[in-house]
Amino acid sequence: MSAQAPGPLDSGAILDLSRRERLGMVEAVWGEHKSTDQIVAIVQELLNASETVLVTRVDRAKAEAVLSQLPAGALHYQVESRCLHSPLQDPDPSTGRVAVLTGGSSDLAVAAEAHLALGCHGIACTLQLDVGVAGLHRLLERLDALRSARVLIACAGMEGALPTVLAGLVPQPVIAVPVSVGYGVSAGGVAALQGMLASCAPGLTVVNIDNGYGAAMAALRILRS
Amino acid sequence: MSAQAPGPLDSGAILDLSRRERLGMVEAVWGEHKSTDQIVAIVQELLNASETVLVTRVDRAKAEAVLSQLPAGALHYQVESRCLHSPLQDPDPSTGRVAVLTGGSSDLAVAAEAHLALGCHGIACTLQLDVGVAGLHRLLERLDALRSARVLIACAGMEGALPTVLAGLVPQPVIAVPVSVGYGVSAGGVAALQGMLASCAPGLTVVNIDNGYGAAMAALRILRS
Amino acid sequence: MSAQAPGPLDSGAILDLSRRERLGMVEAVWGEHKSTDQIVAIVQELLNASETVLVTRVDRAKAEAVLSQLPAGALHYQVESRCLHSPLQDPDPSTGRVAVLTGGSSDLAVAAEAHLALGCHGIACTLQLDVGVAGLHRLLERLDALRSARVLIACAGMEGALPTVLAGLVPQPVIAVPVSVGYGVSAGGVAALQGMLASCAPGLTVVNIDNGYGAAMAALRILRS
Amino acid sequence: MSAQAPGPLDSGAILDLSRRERLGMVEAVWGEHKSTDQIVAIVQELLNASETVLVTRVDRAKAEAVLSQLPAGALHYQVESRCLHSPLQDPDPSTGRVAVLTGGSSDLAVAAEAHLALGCHGIACTLQLDVGVAGLHRLLERLDALRSARVLIACAGMEGALPTVLAGLVPQPVIAVPVSVGYGVSAGGVAALQGMLASCAPGLTVVNIDNGYGAAMAALRILRS
Amino acid sequence: MSAQAPGPLDSGAILDLSRRERLGMVEAVWGEHKSTDQIVAIVQELLNASETVLVTRVDRAKAEAVLSQLPAGALHYQVESRCLHSPLQDPDPSTGRVAVLTGGSSDLAVAAEAHLALGCHGIACTLQLDVGVAGLHRLLERLDALRSARVLIACAGMEGALPTVLAGLVPQPVIAVPVSVGYGVSAGGVAALQGMLASCAPGLTVVNIDNGYGAAMAALRILRS
Amino acid sequence: MSAQAPGPLDSGAILDLSRRERLGMVEAVWGEHKSTDQIVAIVQELLNASETVLVTRVDRAKAEAVLSQLPAGALHYQVESRCLHSPLQDPDPSTGRVAVLTGGSSDLAVAAEAHLALGCHGIACTLQLDVGVAGLHRLLERLDALRSARVLIACAGMEGALPTVLAGLVPQPVIAVPVSVGYGVSAGGVAALQGMLASCAPGLTVVNIDNGYGAAMAALRILRS
Amino acid sequence: MSAQAPGPLDSGAILDLSRRERLGMVEAVWGEHKSTDQIVAIVQELLNASETVLVTRVDRAKAEAVLSQLPAGALHYQVESRCLHSPLQDPDPSTGRVAVLTGGSSDLAVAAEAHLALGCHGIACTLQLDVGVAGLHRLLERLDALRSARVLIACAGMEGALPTVLAGLVPQPVIAVPVSVGYGVSAGGVAALQGMLASCAPGLTVVNIDNGYGAAMAALRILRS
Amino acid sequence: MSAQAPGPLDSGAILDLSRRERLGMVEAVWGEHKSTDQIVAIVQELLNASETVLVTRVDRAKAEAVLSQLPAGALHYQVESRCLHSPLQDPDPSTGRVAVLTGGSSDLAVAAEAHLALGCHGIACTLQLDVGVAGLHRLLERLDALRSARVLIACAGMEGALPTVLAGLVPQPVIAVPVSVGYGVSAGGVAALQGMLASCAPGLTVVNIDNGYGAAMAALRILRS
Repeated sequence: MSAQAPGPLDSGAILDLSRRERLGMVEAVWGEHKSTDQIVAIVQELLNASETVLVTRVDRAKAEAVLSQLPAGALHYQVESRCLHSPLQDPDPSTGRVAVLTGGSSDLAVAAEAHLALGCHGIACTLQLDVGVAGLHRLLERLDALRSARVLIACAGMEGALPTVLAGLVPQPVIAVPVSVGYGVSAGGVAALQGMLASCAPGLTVVNIDNGYGAAMAALRILRS
Repeated sequence: MSAQAPGPLDSGAILDLSRRERLGMVEAVWGEHKSTDQIVAIVQELLNASETVLVTRVDRAKAEAVLSQLPAGALHYQVESRCLHSPLQDPDPSTGRVAVLTGGSSDLAVAAEAHLALGCHGIACTLQLDVGVAGLHRLLERLDALRSARVLIACAGMEGALPTVLAGLVPQPVIAVPVSVGYGVSAGGVAALQGMLASCAPGLTVVNIDNGYGAAMAALRILRS
Repeated sequence: MSAQAPGPLDSGAILDLSRRERLGMVEAVWGEHKSTDQIVAIVQELLNASETVLVTRVDRAKAEAVLSQLPAGALHYQVESRCLHSPLQDPDPSTGRVAVLTGGSSDLAVAAEAHLALGCHGIACTLQLDVGVAGLHRLLERLDALRSARVLIACAGMEGALPTVLAGLVPQPVIAVPVSVGYGVSAGGVAALQGMLASCAPGLTVVNIDNGYGAAMAALRILRS
Repeated sequence: MSAQAPGPLDSGAILDLSRRERLGMVEAVWGEHKSTDQIVAIVQELLNASETVLVTRVDRAKAEAVLSQLPAGALHYQVESRCLHSPLQDPDPSTGRVAVLTGGSSDLAVAAEAHLALGCHGIACTLQLDVGVAGLHRLLERLDALRSARVLIACAGMEGALPTVLAGLVPQPVIAVPVSVGYGVSAGGVAALQGMLASCAPGLTVVNIDNGYGAAMAALRILRS
Repeated sequence: MSAQAPGPLDSGAILDLSRRERLGMVEAVWGEHKSTDQIVAIVQELLNASETVLVTRVDRAKAEAVLSQLPAGALHYQVESRCLHSPLQDPDPSTGRVAVLTGGSSDLAVAAEAHLALGCHGIACTLQLDVGVAGLHRLLERLDALRSARVLIACAGMEGALPTVLAGLVPQPVIAVPVSVGYGVSAGGVAALQGMLASCAPGLTVVNIDNGYGAAMAALRILRS
Repeated sequence: MSAQAPGPLDSGAILDLSRRERLGMVEAVWGEHKSTDQIVAIVQELLNASETVLVTRVDRAKAEAVLSQLPAGALHYQVESRCLHSPLQDPDPSTGRVAVLTGGSSDLAVAAEAHLALGCHGIACTLQLDVGVAGLHRLLERLDALRSARVLIACAGMEGALPTVLAGLVPQPVIAVPVSVGYGVSAGGVAALQGMLASCAPGLTVVNIDNGYGAAMAALRILRS
Repeated sequence: MSAQAPGPLDSGAILDLSRRERLGMVEAVWGEHKSTDQIVAIVQELLNASETVLVTRVDRAKAEAVLSQLPAGALHYQVESRCLHSPLQDPDPSTGRVAVLTGGSSDLAVAAEAHLALGCHGIACTLQLDVGVAGLHRLLERLDALRSARVLIACAGMEGALPTVLAGLVPQPVIAVPVSVGYGVSAGGVAALQGMLASCAPGLTVVNIDNGYGAAMAALRILRS
Repeated sequence: MSAQAPGPLDSGAILDLSRRERLGMVEAVWGEHKSTDQIVAIVQELLNASETVLVTRVDRAKAEAVLSQLPAGALHYQVESRCLHSPLQDPDPSTGRVAVLTGGSSDLAVAAEAHLALGCHGIACTLQLDVGVAGLHRLLERLDALRSARVLIACAGMEGALPTVLAGLVPQPVIAVPVSVGYGVSAGGVAALQGMLASCAPGLTVVNIDNGYGAAMAALRILRS
C-alpha cells in the first residue's frame, strides 16, 4: 500500500495469506489495539479467503460489536480466552495430544488462549488447572495423566516455578508461559519470566509473557516435526 | 480439572483444602483479579468445607456485591484492609503478640491486611501508625510499648527506612513490608523494597511489596515455631 | 549430607544420578565456578557410575589441570565449546537431525556447546555459521539445506533477529539462544533475549542467554516426543 | 514570563518562533498533556505569526473541541496520525523523496505522524505498510520501489527487526522508529528500541519510541544537507 | 571521630560495641572491601573488648595475611564460608536447631556463612546440600529430617524455587537467601531474589542476595523470640 | 494509636506538629492518595493547631469537595500547582529570592508547586518558563535577571539538560527537579533524573521526580543557612 | 560452513564480501572478543580479496601481535581509536565533510573510531574535542567552523547533553553517540543514551553506546544519499 | 582543536580555565580513565596557569608515577580520598563550616574526597565517621556538634537511610551522597541513591553515586550564596 501526502491515509492491513502454506499456521489477529471496524474488515478478508479466523485479546463488548456485523455463526466468542474464532472441527488424535497446565486460577485466560489456538489447528488438548507448587501434591497426583501428552505447556505467574518442577519430573517438551498475574515484583510477569529462563531444569523453553497463542504454535511445530 | 476443546471451559478453582492441616494456615483468596461470581463460588466452597474465609484486595463495590449473594453474617467487610473475612474470634494471648507499625498513614491498607490476617488465625495484634523516621521522636516514644510483642511487622513506603531503624533498636524478629506509596523513584514500592533488602541492620527479613498477608503468615510461622 | 558446626564442612555434591532414567539426559556439570579439585571429584563419581560426562564452561587451563588428574583418554576437551566430555559415539540418524545456526562468528562458543551436548546424546547435528540478517542472502541460500533438520537452534547476539527471520521462513521447531556478545545496550545479551521473546514470528521459543546446553536438551525432548 | 507569589500564575507558553529561521523547521506542539484551551491559545499565537501549525498526539474529541474554537478551515485533523495541522501544499519533488515503512498495521499511527510532518515541510513521502520480517517476501517484493527514496524511515514494534533487515539490503540512510506496540517484554517499545540500537546492520540510526515527528525532522535535516 | 582539613585523615572505625547488649548479636565485620591492615586493627579492638569476632568475605590470601599478624589461635579461617572467626563453643541445644539447605553445590559459600554465623552465637545447625527442585525426590526424602528444626534457611540461585516448594510443605519459618550463581538472566542473583519475593507459598521471608549472615541473624531473632 | 483486632480500625493520622519548631517547615499533606474526608480531617486538625496548611496533588474536583466542607476563605485552591493552601502573606525580601525555571510549559505544575511552597514560607520567588536548551537564546537572554536570585530551581522533563547548562553558567546553588513529562524513554521522568545526576556541571543537586515541594524546602534550608 | 559432530569444529568466519557492492561500506571486524589468530586469519582473507581492512577495539598488545604476523605495512595501528586499518588515501572533498565533536577528553576513543572509519571510506573529517555544555562558550565559539560540515557527529558521556544543545543551534544532520564514560548512574553510558533519545531538540538521531563506527557509517549513508 | 584524517590525532584536552572566574570553582580532573601521561600533561598546564590542582580517583601506583614526573612538592597525594592536590592553605572560618558524615567506614573514600575538595577551596570542614542508623545512638550523640555547621554532607551505602534520618532532625541544608558499597541489591549504590531520592524527609538533595567532589561543590555554592 502506498499513499501520497496529504489527505486521508489508506490504513488497510496487508495479510500474510501465504502463512498457512509456508508454516502451516493460521495468522492470528491481535485484537487488543484494533477497533471494531478494523477487526471486522480483517475478518471479512480472511473469510473471503476461506481462512480459519482467530482473533485474540478481544473483550466481551468489542466481541459482541464485531459479531453483530458478521453473518450469524461465522465466528464464535469464547469468554475465558477472550478470543473470536471460526467454528472448530473435531481434533485429529493421530497428531498427538497437548496438555496445558496452570499454577492458579488467575492463569486461566492465557491457558485458554493456548488451548483454543490448538483447537483451531485440529490438535487435541487437555487443561489441568491449579497445580501450582505451593501445594505440590496436586501436581504429583496428575503426573500419570500427563504422560500421555506429547507436549506440555505450563502457564504460571508469581514466581513461575511450575514449569521448572514439571520439567524435572517428565521427559517431554515443556513450554513455559509466564503470566502477568501478581503484584509488587511479580506485577507484569517479569519475575515469572526470569525464573523460567533461569530454570535449573534442563531443556525448558520459554515464550513471551501471556503468549498463550505463541506457546500453542510452538507445540504445533513440535507435533508436526 | 480437564476439558476437551472446543466449547466453554470449566474454570472452577481447585482449592488447597489440606493447607490448614499441612501448614496451619487458611488459604487466603486473592480477590483483585476475580469477578464477583468467581469470589462467591470460591467462598461458598470454603464455607461448605467449614474453612475460615479471607478474601484480600476487594474494593467496596465488589465486596457489597459478594455479600448480597451470601447468607447474612456469613462474611464481614473491613474497609481499611479491603478484605472480606469470616467473623473473628477472640485472640489467644498465649501464642504471643504481634505489633504492626507504619511509617505514614498511606501505609494503612497494607498494615490492616496484616492485622486482619493475624486476627483470622487467633493472634493478638496491635497497630502503631505514623512512626516514620522523618519525625524520629514518634518511634522512640513507643519503643517500650513494642518490647512486649514477640514479632514486629514494619510497613513503609517512600525510602522504607523504618524497619532498618527499628531493627537496630530492638532484638525481636522484624518483618519489613515495602508499600507501593510514593511517586518518581518510589512509585510502586521498589525503592522501599531495595532499601529494606540492603539494610545495614542485622537480621531484617522482607516480603513482597504490599504483601501484608504474607508478613502475617511469616509472623504466624514464627509464633508457632 | 549434614554437618555439625563448627569445623570443616563436607562440601561434596549430591549428584542426581536418576536423571538419565527419569529424563533421558546426562547431568551436565557447570564448570564455571568450580575448582579443579571439585570438577575432578565429580567426574570421578560420574565415571564410577558409568555415566556420560559433560562439563561446560571450562577454560583451557582448568581443563588441562583436570585432564592431568584423570586416566588418559577418560575425557576429551573441545576448545570451541569450552567443554570436557566423554568420548563420543556415532550419532544415531534415526532420531532425526538438528541444525545449529549462528548470526556471527562470535556466537560460536554457544553454538558449539549445543552441538556437543547433542553429540553426547547420540544426536546428529550440523552447524551453519555466519548467517546473520545483515547479509540476508547468506541465510536464504541455506534454506533448502535446513529443511532436512527436524529441529533448528538459532544462536545470535546483538539485536538477535536471526531466529525471528528463520521462524518466518520454515515450519520446524525453532529454539532461539541469545548470546552475550555486543556492547552498549547489547552487552550481556539482554537486547537479543528481549527481541527473541518479543518476536513477531509465531511459535518461537527461547532459552537463557548463552544456554547452548539448554537448547540442546530442549531439542532432545522434541526429538524423543 | 515572570510572576510574583501568591496569586494565579500566568502559564502562557513562550514559543520558539525563531526555530524556522535557525533550523528550517516548524515547532510542533505536543498536544498530549495540554488542555483544549492551552492548544487553542498556542495555535492562535502561531497563526498570528503566520507559522505552519502541527499539533501531535491529539485524540479525536480534543481535536474537535479545538477546531470548534478556530476559524473554519484554519486547521485540519488527520485521524490516523492523531494530528491537527495547517492545510498542506503540494510537496516539492526536487528535494527528494522519503519512504516510511511499517512492520505491522499497529504501527500506523507513528508512521502517519512522520508522513504528515514531512508533508508540513513540503517533502514528498510514500507509506509502505505491513512489510514485517515474519513474512519476509512482502519486504523483498518492495525493494525496487524503495530505491527511489533518498531516506527510509522504518517503524516497528515487537522485536523491531525490520530496520535491521532493511539496512542490510539498501545503501540509503535508514532511520529506525521503535513503536510501543506489544505486550510482555515488548510492552512500551523498549525491546524494539534496544534491538534497533544493537543492530548488526551498519549505519542504522534510531529515535525515541513512537517519535514519528522526530524521524521526519531527521529526514528533513538529511534532505537539506 | 572528627578531623580538620587538610592533612592525613584518621580513618579508624567506630565499633558498635553496645550491639550485643542491645540486640544480642556480635557485630560481623564485612571484610570484602577492607585491607589487611584495616581488618587487623578492627579485630584487635574487638579482641581487646572480649567480643566474639566474625569477619565475612575474606579470601584465603587476605585471611592468611591477617592471621599472621594476630596471636596464634586467636582466630580461625573457614575456607568454605570465607570467614575469619573466634574459636567456637559447643552449641546450646536448648535454644532450638536451624537447618540450612542449598539447591546446588554452588550455593555452599552462602550456606556456610549462615551456618558459621549461627555457630558463633551458640546455635546448633545442620546443612542439607543439593536438594534443588530439578530433582525433587532429593528434597522429599529429607522432609522428615527437617521437621526437627525450628527455623529453615533455604539458599538457592538460578530460578530460586527451592524455598517456595519448601514453604509449601512445612509449617516452620522459612528464610530464603538468593544466591548470585548463574548466568544470563540469573547472573547476580536477581532472578532468584524476585522469584522468592513473588513466591506463591505463604509466609516466606527473604534477605539480600548472598546474605548468609543476615539470614542467620534473622533465625537468631526468631529462636530468641 | 493502637487498636485491638477485630473491629473497625482507627485510621487517624498522627501529625508531626513539632516539625515547624524542629525544622522551620510546615508539614505538607500529600493529597494524591487521600480521600476528601481524610483531607478534611487532617486540615481541620492543622487549622485547630494554627498551622499553615499546604495540601499537594489535589485535582480540581477533590479540591472543591474539600473546600465545601471548610469555612469560607480558610483555604484557597491554585489550579496550576494543584494545591490547597492557607492564605499567603507578603514575602519577606530580606531572606533572599528564589528563581524557579522550566524547560517547557508542560513542567508548569511542578514549578508552580515549588513556587507556592516557598510562598507558604514567606519566600519571594519568580518563575521563568520555557527556557529549555533546544532554543538556547531564551535562557541566555535571562541570565542577568537570574543573577539576583540566591537559589535557582530548574525543572525539566525530556532529557533534562536545562539545570546542567544553567549550573555551568552561574555560581549560585542550582536544585534540579526532573519532571515526568515525555514518552518512550523519557516517560515517567527517569531519563531526566539520570541526566541531572550524571551532570558534567559541578555542584548540581537533585530531588525526586516531580518533587517541587522538596526543591522548595531545600531552597528554604539554604536561605536560612 | 557445516560440521559433523564429534571432532574439532571448523570455526572460520564467512565474510560478507558483497557488502561493499550492496551498501558501499567495508565490513569492519569487531576485534574485542577475537583472538590474535582469528584476527590474522580474517585480515588475510580480506587482504586476499583486496578489501579495505578496519579492525576495531584492539588493544595495543593484541595489535602488535597481529601486525607481527602480517607483511610490513599491510596494516597500521592507531592508538587513540584502538583500530587496525589499511593505509588511508586522501579524502575526496567533493562528497562533503563531517565534523566529529566530543564533550570531554574521555570521549576521544569513540570519536577517533568514527573519524578513522570515515577516513577508510575517503571522507574528509575534522575533530572538535572538549566542547561540553558545562563550559558552553567553548561550543558557541566553534559554531561558525561547524557550519561547513554536511553532517555532525556528537560524542558525549555523563548526561550526554552536547548533541541536544548542538541540534538546537544548527540545521544539519546531528548523529549522537553516547559514550560509556562516567560513574554511578552514568556508568556504561545508559544515562547519556537515554538523554539523547529523549532530547527536546528536533531531528536528533542516536546510535548504540560507544558505536563510533556506526555513527560514521550513518554519516556515509547521508553523504551519499 | 581540529585534525585532518589520517595520521596521529592530537588528543590534548582543552581546559575550562574560565571556570574559576565564572563559577568560583577549580576544575577537578577526573583521573580514573586517564593515563599517567595524560594526567601529567593536564597538571602541568594547570600549574602553568597558576590554577589549584585537584585530580580525583587516582590509585596509589598511578599517583606515584605522576608525582615522579612533577617538581617535588608541586602536588600531594592523599590516600584516603585517592586524590592528587595542590598544597592546601588554612581554611577561612568566616565562610562557614561544613560537616561530612558517613554511615560506615567503607564510605570513607567518598567522604574524604568531599572533605579534600572543600579544603582546596579554603572551606573549614569536619568528618564524622560511622554514624549509621543501625546504631542510632552514635548519631544522636553527635547532633549538638553538628549544629554549628552551615551545611551537612551525608555519605551512605547499603540502604542509605542516614541522610533521611539526619534531615528529619536538623534544619540545615543536607546533601546526600550515595556510596557504591554493598552487595546484591545494594551493589553499585543504586539502592542508596533511590532511597535518598525517595526520602520522606523534606528538602533533602542528592548527587550522583560516589560523587564526593560534586557534594563539596554544592556546599560551596550554598556557602557563597
